[in-house]
Amino acid sequence: MINIEWKQPELILLDQTKLPTDIHYIRCTDWRQVAEAIKMLRVRGAPAIGVAAGYGLILAATEATQSNHPFSEQLSQFYEFAEELKETRPTAINLAWAVDRVLTLVKASISDNAITNGEALINLITKEAEEIHREDIALNHAMAKAGATLFEGQSNIRMLTHCNAGALATGGLGTALGVIRELHANGQLERVYADETRPLLQGARLTALELHEDGIPVTLQTDNMAAYAMQQGLIDAIIVGADRITTKGDVANKIGTYGLAVLAKHHNIPFYVAAPYSTFDFTLQDGKDIPIEMRMAEEVWNFHGIQTAPSDIGILNPAFDVTPHELVTAIITEQGVLKPDYEASIAELQSKVQK
Amino acid sequence: MINIEWKQPELILLDQTKLPTDIHYIRCTDWRQVAEAIKMLRVRGAPAIGVAAGYGLILAATEATQSNHPFSEQLSQFYEFAEELKETRPTAINLAWAVDRVLTLVKASISDNAITNGEALINLITKEAEEIHREDIALNHAMAKAGATLFEGQSNIRMLTHCNAGALATGGLGTALGVIRELHANGQLERVYADETRPLLQGARLTALELHEDGIPVTLQTDNMAAYAMQQGLIDAIIVGADRITTKGDVANKIGTYGLAVLAKHHNIPFYVAAPYSTFDFTLQDGKDIPIEMRMAEEVWNFHGIQTAPSDIGILNPAFDVTPHELVTAIITEQGVLKPDYEASIAELQSKVQK
Repeated sequence: MINIEWKQPELILLDQTKLPTDIHYIRCTDWRQVAEAIKMLRVRGAPAIGVAAGYGLILAATEATQSNHPFSEQLSQFYEFAEELKETRPTAINLAWAVDRVLTLVKASISDNAITNGEALINLITKEAEEIHREDIALNHAMAKAGATLFEGQSNIRMLTHCNAGALATGGLGTALGVIRELHANGQLERVYADETRPLLQGARLTALELHEDGIPVTLQTDNMAAYAMQQGLIDAIIVGADRITTKGDVANKIGTYGLAVLAKHHNIPFYVAAPYSTFDFTLQDGKDIPIEMRMAEEVWNFHGIQTAPSDIGILNPAFDVTPHELVTAIITEQGVLKPDYEASIAELQSKVQK
Repeated sequence: MINIEWKQPELILLDQTKLPTDIHYIRCTDWRQVAEAIKMLRVRGAPAIGVAAGYGLILAATEATQSNHPFSEQLSQFYEFAEELKETRPTAINLAWAVDRVLTLVKASISDNAITNGEALINLITKEAEEIHREDIALNHAMAKAGATLFEGQSNIRMLTHCNAGALATGGLGTALGVIRELHANGQLERVYADETRPLLQGARLTALELHEDGIPVTLQTDNMAAYAMQQGLIDAIIVGADRITTKGDVANKIGTYGLAVLAKHHNIPFYVAAPYSTFDFTLQDGKDIPIEMRMAEEVWNFHGIQTAPSDIGILNPAFDVTPHELVTAIITEQGVLKPDYEASIAELQSKVQK
């Protein structure tokens, strides 16, 4: 199931809100459609929204350079569009990272006089967006291999995951599910326990779907059954993706992740996070400073048009939570596995990727 | 909202599966309708199914004594019906407790020759079923008062609860929600955080509804947000009901309760259980021996006819979990608050109620 495809002049996105029952694609010819798709979680998963935003910038540049205004004004327009796209969702750093990566390149090329018109701008962005996508696929492969090293000599592994950190969340194999696919390919995996992940059920709708389609044994459970599964000895390890990781190793990820990490500690189960370098926010030290997106109340009291609670009550709906680094056993990156002390191992990662 | 009412010759039950949007009553004239309503969770909550089963036995006795067979054969038929009703759901002890209470009385009255025909049998059971219901209302009041003593001198209390241990789960005020109502009446309560409680959403559909109708401020959250709420300092105490409590103080309750207890310990938040004496299983010591009802897969992958995951995957669907006594701060009963050492305090409870 391809979830993101650039087919000049369109960005084709799989509408993940319609899964698992409908396979529906959106053909975006306007960057605002891309922004809407990100906002409404039609495309979601930190790496995937980075990839989609890269392509969205091609559409933004195309629109901005269609006018008769001078190139400098077209560029200002483009920068405004890019800023708006970047602010669509606040927690996952990969979105801002992808937009900033393209903008940094554009600005450098402008100041070098390497690009002087709309066509050149569009070509430059297209190349970079495609490079971000290609790179994401490669990062997923590298993470899968790195993650598998944590399980050397183990077999019949029963792995718990939360939300969807799979092919549908990335441009490639997936982060957490990339590691799971690698273990399955190695014959080491017995089964994946997938939390359904309320309120939007990405675990049920997406993770259970993509694992099942790949022939990987999967058991679906509601989020509040994870503790029971651990208590019953059904879980050997937990692996999740991430939306942002600070320099201390604090991890923002889908709501419910923090609770799983606490439960893992209580049951002496290792808790792993898989994420590429673009998920690290090297400007933030403490997880408390990560902005947490609060989403609309309807997502909690209304399920596909069915009302599950009175609509005029209080609703808590944070999309993410932050797991403090003390609860994280290891962080799997494309550069290898990071272990505590995270301040040191993440600084080393930074020095490698920012060379 | 009355949930259980005996109006000779009918037992009128509120169909809780239709809440919060439809107020629909079922008029049971056959004990099998009562059994179906218990099985399908139209009536649910440990004390409520005890009360409903008591009335269901009137219908069973009515049917059993309609034949032309001798009274002794009618009685055997009644005992068979009673056994079947008792086995409708395995975890909550209150169901078995109510049926056994009626059967013990019937058998004693038979051996005393106090009843010798169908009419006398029906009258005896009717009186006892009504007594169980009246007693449940009184127990709820007593628990509410006893529970409030734990919060003396406290104000602006923010309480987390799970599932529904309220008026809809009992014949009266509720167990956990009875304590909450008492704190609200005393002006000590700021707000209740209600876990929605997947898969059947009793927290959203029932708890949020009944608190909101009573004007008690309530915030609904998905189950996986409870850890976030604790981490953010939004929760002062947790209070839940119970389906069965062993002599060691291990507590079976709605799936997700155990995870909350672990999270409470991690965050140093007191974890309270409210339950009447009929919830204690004085024949069981260890929570591991409590039978856990596993329910059908559709409850997890199918929501009101909407498919949320592939249907041919593994599904975990335990209706309950067991919280070991070490994680329970106190157990609130109608006889007062029990604290560790539970073996001693529960033995004392037993000696009081079995006098």
